[in-house]
Amino acid sequence: MSDPVTVIGASGALGYGLALRLGGKGVPIVVGSRDADRARETAGKLAEAVPDGSFEGDANGPAAERAEIVFLCVPFRSQSETLTNLKEHLREGQLMVDATVPLAAAVSGRATRMLGVWQGSAAEQAAEMVPDGVKVVSALHTISAALLRDTEAALDEDILVCGDRKADKGRAIELIEKIDGLRCVDCGRLENSRTTEALTALLIGVNARYKTHAGIRITGLP
Amino acid sequence: MSDPVTVIGASGALGYGLALRLGGKGVPIVVGSRDADRARETAGKLAEAVPDGSFEGDANGPAAERAEIVFLCVPFRSQSETLTNLKEHLREGQLMVDATVPLAAAVSGRATRMLGVWQGSAAEQAAEMVPDGVKVVSALHTISAALLRDTEAALDEDILVCGDRKADKGRAIELIEKIDGLRCVDCGRLENSRTTEALTALLIGVNARYKTHAGIRITGLP
Repeated sequence: MSDPVTVIGASGALGYGLALRLGGKGVPIVVGSRDADRARETAGKLAEAVPDGSFEGDANGPAAERAEIVFLCVPFRSQSETLTNLKEHLREGQLMVDATVPLAAAVSGRATRMLGVWQGSAAEQAAEMVPDGVKVVSALHTISAALLRDTEAALDEDILVCGDRKADKGRAIELIEKIDGLRCVDCGRLENSRTTEALTALLIGVNARYKTHAGIRITGLP
Repeated sequence: MSDPVTVIGASGALGYGLALRLGGKGVPIVVGSRDADRARETAGKLAEAVPDGSFEGDANGPAAERAEIVFLCVPFRSQSETLTNLKEHLREGQLMVDATVPLAAAVSGRATRMLGVWQGSAAEQAAEMVPDGVKVVSALHTISAALLRDTEAALDEDILVCGDRKADKGRAIELIEKIDGLRCVDCGRLENSRTTEALTALLIGVNARYKTHAGIRITGLP
């Protein structure tokens, strides 16, 4: 049996899709939501969709305590508040995989534009806000939430992973690559999230123009 | 016979590869370099590599006058100076395809990091600096210059094209897609060059880590 994994924001589109896909691969999922009842409701929906999966729900704080790897899949508007509330719950050695994208939509701007984040990127903001010893990598910015949620859809794209330590990226990559059709690419330091996050806005535009759910593939890799 | 195309900076790696590949497809190439002799020397090298191609060389200014489409393939360090010197030579209706990337290497920083450009991107700087009526699109940031120069190498990747007018992007796309193995993707407005330019720095890091010449493919397109 795999270790459990927490998905903060699993009631949202990306988090739900991630929980669904990982849960389907035998990874026990702890669903975190701001509201514990909402979390349990989402866990119930996931359990219906994946009858042989293991899904439990709890409020973000207690949910974050229950796994060594915690995915953060919240809108940028809530990222800072969520991280503040998680401070008492996260502990040294845990790995946070941040998928937050600072789209201008967070402040009623366009989803095809980015906000400037003082630290450089949402992931670097997360790294600044987690307690000492909690590692942060970023990933999952370019995968379409709609595709991830649609278990009928075959995935065939890359996940760009940024982080300052190879070992942390390795932990995230091992987990994400359990999902069929996803290949992770090590995109260097966490600061490179400035670029991988911005790809989300670029792809949202591509999706509108080409009526699709676009993703990224890095060519030329062995 | 195709209309001629000018490649400013064709003595550099990317410009040379572009001139080589387009020239091989029957597009007459006007090589621009700061120095006219250098331009003619590069044109001579290109003519040796592509004996049935048409290559002429001239200083940047006169070279830019000789085609309706002008590629700008110079290091960011020289972009602003080059554009200033081109002001008297460019004319209304011409299309500039800017491939400049503001890597931090321009100021002795890392090639895996970007400089902030006041206008938002090198392409937006170009758009601000060209004479009225000269159109600017951006492209070719993610293709490896080494692959482009190596005519033995089969290309199989996308070129991300940004620009404010569909018609301008269409002109650039028609030309670039003459090169076998390149598909252009309309990535929206010129301001999105902020992201497509940054991909160069990201890919330079990927190249170092994976010992390859990486490129980008957008998945999910029709």
